[in-house]
Amino acid sequence: MTGSPASPRATKPVSTTTSESGFVDESEAGAVHLAPDAPPSRPPTVEGMPGGASPIGRIPVTDVRPLVDCGTRPAKSVVGEEFVVQARVFREGHEAVNATAVLTDPAGGEHYFAMHCDNPGLSEWSTTVVADREGWWTYRVEGWSDPYATWVHDATIKIGAGIDSELMCAEGVRVLERFAAAVRGQDIDAAPIAIGIAALKDGTLPAAHRLGAATSPEIRGLAGLVPLREFVSPSAAYSLLVERERALFGAWYEIFPRSEGAVRDPKTGRWTSGTLRTAAKRLPGIAAMGFDVVYLTPIHPIGTTARKGPNNSLVAGPEDPGSPYAIGSSEGGHDAIHPDLGTFEDFDHFVAEAARNGLEVAMDFALQASPDHPWVQTHPALFTTRADGTIAYAENPPKKYQDIYPLNFDNDPAEAYAEVRRVIQVWLDHGVRIFRVDNPHTKPIPFWQWLIADVALTYPDVIWLAEAFTKPAMMHTLAKVGFQQSYTYYAWRNQRWELEEYGRELAGPAAAYMRPSFFPTTPDILTPYMQYGGPTAWKLRAALAATMVPTYGIYAGYELMENVARPGAEEQIDNEKYEYKDRQWYLYEPGGALEGQSLAGYLTRLNDIRRWHPALRWLRNLHFHHADDENILVYSKTRVVGGERNTIVVVANVDPHATRETWVHLDLEAMGLATWSTFDAHDEITGQTWQWRADNFVRLGPDSEPVHIIHVRSH
Amino acid sequence: MTGSPASPRATKPVSTTTSESGFVDESEAGAVHLAPDAPPSRPPTVEGMPGGASPIGRIPVTDVRPLVDCGTRPAKSVVGEEFVVQARVFREGHEAVNATAVLTDPAGGEHYFAMHCDNPGLSEWSTTVVADREGWWTYRVEGWSDPYATWVHDATIKIGAGIDSELMCAEGVRVLERFAAAVRGQDIDAAPIAIGIAALKDGTLPAAHRLGAATSPEIRGLAGLVPLREFVSPSAAYSLLVERERALFGAWYEIFPRSEGAVRDPKTGRWTSGTLRTAAKRLPGIAAMGFDVVYLTPIHPIGTTARKGPNNSLVAGPEDPGSPYAIGSSEGGHDAIHPDLGTFEDFDHFVAEAARNGLEVAMDFALQASPDHPWVQTHPALFTTRADGTIAYAENPPKKYQDIYPLNFDNDPAEAYAEVRRVIQVWLDHGVRIFRVDNPHTKPIPFWQWLIADVALTYPDVIWLAEAFTKPAMMHTLAKVGFQQSYTYYAWRNQRWELEEYGRELAGPAAAYMRPSFFPTTPDILTPYMQYGGPTAWKLRAALAATMVPTYGIYAGYELMENVARPGAEEQIDNEKYEYKDRQWYLYEPGGALEGQSLAGYLTRLNDIRRWHPALRWLRNLHFHHADDENILVYSKTRVVGGERNTIVVVANVDPHATRETWVHLDLEAMGLATWSTFDAHDEITGQTWQWRADNFVRLGPDSEPVHIIHVRSH
Repeated sequence: MTGSPASPRATKPVSTTTSESGFVDESEAGAVHLAPDAPPSRPPTVEGMPGGASPIGRIPVTDVRPLVDCGTRPAKSVVGEEFVVQARVFREGHEAVNATAVLTDPAGGEHYFAMHCDNPGLSEWSTTVVADREGWWTYRVEGWSDPYATWVHDATIKIGAGIDSELMCAEGVRVLERFAAAVRGQDIDAAPIAIGIAALKDGTLPAAHRLGAATSPEIRGLAGLVPLREFVSPSAAYSLLVERERALFGAWYEIFPRSEGAVRDPKTGRWTSGTLRTAAKRLPGIAAMGFDVVYLTPIHPIGTTARKGPNNSLVAGPEDPGSPYAIGSSEGGHDAIHPDLGTFEDFDHFVAEAARNGLEVAMDFALQASPDHPWVQTHPALFTTRADGTIAYAENPPKKYQDIYPLNFDNDPAEAYAEVRRVIQVWLDHGVRIFRVDNPHTKPIPFWQWLIADVALTYPDVIWLAEAFTKPAMMHTLAKVGFQQSYTYYAWRNQRWELEEYGRELAGPAAAYMRPSFFPTTPDILTPYMQYGGPTAWKLRAALAATMVPTYGIYAGYELMENVARPGAEEQIDNEKYEYKDRQWYLYEPGGALEGQSLAGYLTRLNDIRRWHPALRWLRNLHFHHADDENILVYSKTRVVGGERNTIVVVANVDPHATRETWVHLDLEAMGLATWSTFDAHDEITGQTWQWRADNFVRLGPDSEPVHIIHVRSH
Repeated sequence: MTGSPASPRATKPVSTTTSESGFVDESEAGAVHLAPDAPPSRPPTVEGMPGGASPIGRIPVTDVRPLVDCGTRPAKSVVGEEFVVQARVFREGHEAVNATAVLTDPAGGEHYFAMHCDNPGLSEWSTTVVADREGWWTYRVEGWSDPYATWVHDATIKIGAGIDSELMCAEGVRVLERFAAAVRGQDIDAAPIAIGIAALKDGTLPAAHRLGAATSPEIRGLAGLVPLREFVSPSAAYSLLVERERALFGAWYEIFPRSEGAVRDPKTGRWTSGTLRTAAKRLPGIAAMGFDVVYLTPIHPIGTTARKGPNNSLVAGPEDPGSPYAIGSSEGGHDAIHPDLGTFEDFDHFVAEAARNGLEVAMDFALQASPDHPWVQTHPALFTTRADGTIAYAENPPKKYQDIYPLNFDNDPAEAYAEVRRVIQVWLDHGVRIFRVDNPHTKPIPFWQWLIADVALTYPDVIWLAEAFTKPAMMHTLAKVGFQQSYTYYAWRNQRWELEEYGRELAGPAAAYMRPSFFPTTPDILTPYMQYGGPTAWKLRAALAATMVPTYGIYAGYELMENVARPGAEEQIDNEKYEYKDRQWYLYEPGGALEGQSLAGYLTRLNDIRRWHPALRWLRNLHFHHADDENILVYSKTRVVGGERNTIVVVANVDPHATRETWVHLDLEAMGLATWSTFDAHDEITGQTWQWRADNFVRLGPDSEPVHIIHVRSH
């Protein structure tokens, strides 16, 4: 890890077309031409020799980072997201080496970023880069020899020591004349170079004056902007997929649409399902809380064979609606809408209402079938037939899940891929651009790789979220092959050390390809921490999710702190997966009987803070700080926008059961501040402001607030 | 790091030509054919899509290790050296996954090694592989679906629980029939499979009996040897360069040949140079100590311009021989022999005598010139001309080294490469097969890459040792581009924690491409530790060098513990680089006046131990153990040869000034022993034997021996 802050960067692309010479593969390095004093011969290389040897560059560039699966898969970014490119760059002997990071945009334009050396002993170079539009970019690192810097180094020492002064001035003329020739024809004022050359040639001046003129700030500035580069040696060019900002940043709100507007007749106890029309009425409320994405659990027809009843019971009553994840009935499959919810017209209405409220619609995509799914008849090859001729249902021996048929992609892969692609197109045609994929780790990885890539050919704005609560290798690989976002282990990371370790993993090298989504609870997940942590835990876990990573999500009812689990399970009792739930939102509204007993206001505040502070829109800027109490978690995020530094510091007591007092020790340099700085620490949760410095006393917990979300002001 | 022991391996290559089906790139995976029940279609892939997407395998294989610069450079091994191949292998869903490592020999023959899962949660698989001949091999990892293992898992649970017994037997028949078809035509006795099928079909037998017959040890054995593999998904095939054993293992002895047989006239004080003929007389003594390689500092004519005198003084007297590293005079350059040393005939005699004594000759290759080198006239482009028309000498401003002209490879690269290649050929023609390269990090890296590769085309047995005492990136890259061996920072690693850290680095991933050489001292290096550590330090540092890594070296005079430094320098006073040195070896021989005052016997013992114990011929088997005293270093090496386990445990007190007593805690499992084992610990240094177990008391230091080198016996 480099500890370097954001580097200066060449916002103006530097043309180097005539400024370097050397053994560059011109096809790779762009329009690089040999300088007039190029060598008269090219050396032999190892190309084509045994072992498939790759020629190493004249100036070696190794360990380029980020690098995803050795560059066989793209690194990812979103428009405007800064990230650090690193490499090891070194050369033989004592002459000066330098390096440039080059981003090539989808139109072929090259963007140059001067690199700086972070660690000379380890030959580590880095720079901060940014891509300004969507599409397939590439990035590479060019190592090069820096003859001007070599001369400055040697001449400064030797003229300072009174050694070889005349010779060093003559050598300086040579290098500056090459520099002048290199920038000629570019739209650059090279007059400072001519002034330096004239001074070096003027034997009447003291040597120190001549040196001074040849190392003027103006010439050094030109050397930074349009350097004289020799032996430019490019690394391979690696793919960089730049996506829209929603791929990285967004607040999600998950609903079961049938619950939104569902009504239970108090006399008969019978339910009337909510519909897409009634659910659409909930959209303004969700938008008012500041969410960006409304995520719908599956809306397709539900099977009746072996339908599950309330609380996952094996027998459903005639009125039980079944799990929306048991997809498919005589009324249709994945390309259909449950008749109780409405029609495609209603769906279009819902999508339009969402858009009108500033919300995107995310659709659940659960590739499995109930035994009643039309595919059982129309696409039998999508299922596994057992030795007795029956279709295999889901099993985890000896457990059986007879309401679910897993899909088989191997019986007839081409047909399976095509059919799924057809289904996805239905929803694309109805305006869906975000898919939350249920259990992607139970389908072949090459299928997802192809599906996501194929959709992106026509719809590059589509975002796929992987619900892969599984082994790390699978989770990371799904991200590498295309999923824009991934659920994470966040719900099970509750201790400070766990959160720090996990945060460092996610914001570190993994951030080059995987964008984490933090859900504190889901319809499937209600951890003991949430069951027993009280309101403090519910606030805390939402606040951490909303500030540690750019994408987080809430499952409807989080506002109400629904913390009771089904006995023996870590999910809610009376789970909405198997029944309707009317949360009577109106009771919590102003004037309602339960006004003030919801976390809606707190969530709204969190989303406001996310909107106000652009530092929270990024992942890779996550930095942890120390606190003396092992339960006090401290992290900051910093981002410079339009020349202004935006910094948020989060201080959280992860023990929901006890108020704790301790000292927090901020690494001010990581926040762009001098170590001796003081600043106004404005808590965006309470509105209080304190005078803070590196070491600060805090008190957090159930008797007040579990979290400070501090905006660093007026320093 | 996997902590797994060596895995079982399929010494007999398994043909899988008819045993798998799936979406295999047949060109990559060898002769892989679709099984009879192959799917009727192939899915579309991402090949050719934007971003240069690489299709992922049906069964993903990621993070193959070893991997050198992402596979762009070869991993290295020597004949017979076992090493571990690792990868992450996983699949969707719950079915069984499996993996095979495949080595392809230079003739195209495939060698299969069954992998095992070390960590299911992290999807880590590994196996131990070995290549049995020199040349360019490849290695790859194949992930595959294991239908027999899937069935065994499910059937065992379900039949055990009395569920679906008949169905599971019928499924078993299907999988065993596929298995039988897959092994048909191979030279395999498939009768056990037929027995299993018959039992499964026999409804009169209890289900448990039918299951037992279908999971018999015989069938499981066949499944290990010639598994039914489905969806075989190969990783890329990576280069593996297998070299001769001397590339990894050898004991070196460094001499200045002019000193061996040099005679000083006691009356006049004038020296007569030793010659290659007199130096050859020293060879039996070097061989008797058990060394493998005799390394000669440069033997070329020496320049007279600015010749250095004794102790690196700037003025040489008329009798001073000069530094052999200031190469070239009117008598010739790098392709010539200093007349004082003799002729090419004498050189041939020396090489032959070395061979007769079981020694290889390593030649110093120092690419720099004195101002008197013939190249200054014949190849002026090999040097840098300064602005004043003079040739640039070596400098480290403001220091000047006017006796040395560095070479310039950029003025006319093709000519420079060709000339150096011509010089090397002279020595190849005279039987030299080992080159010790002086300061390779001051020449362009692509030059070394090409030179080593080009020589290897005709002389694959040539070994190059890099004297790159420089930054890690350069040192490692020189190894990656071809150097068989590298000097190391060993001389400066004296504390236990330093040696552990460095040992882990060298024996870890770096061992896939870099083979370390440990020299406790050289003509350039005499650390304070050696200056002031007394005889204990000289024994200790030789013993550690000889046992921690397979290649180590001694500079002549190490036997005599020449520990006095030139004031202000960390090298010897009266350094042999600038003068003759007659060490009067005869004085230390039996009957000599100084008999018993040399470490020759100790070094002989170390080399004997290295010869007796094959575990010491390997690097990657280095394993550290704990001792309570922070100065007691403990490590072991284990190797199985011909079914017998050879284990050496080294216990060393790295404090040369104090005897220390402490407890040593051995990780017996890492030595292939059960944790409760006892064994005879035979100290190969003293000949003593103790009864040892996991925890043992030791006492080491100046009042006895600094090191135990323990052979684990009779356990």
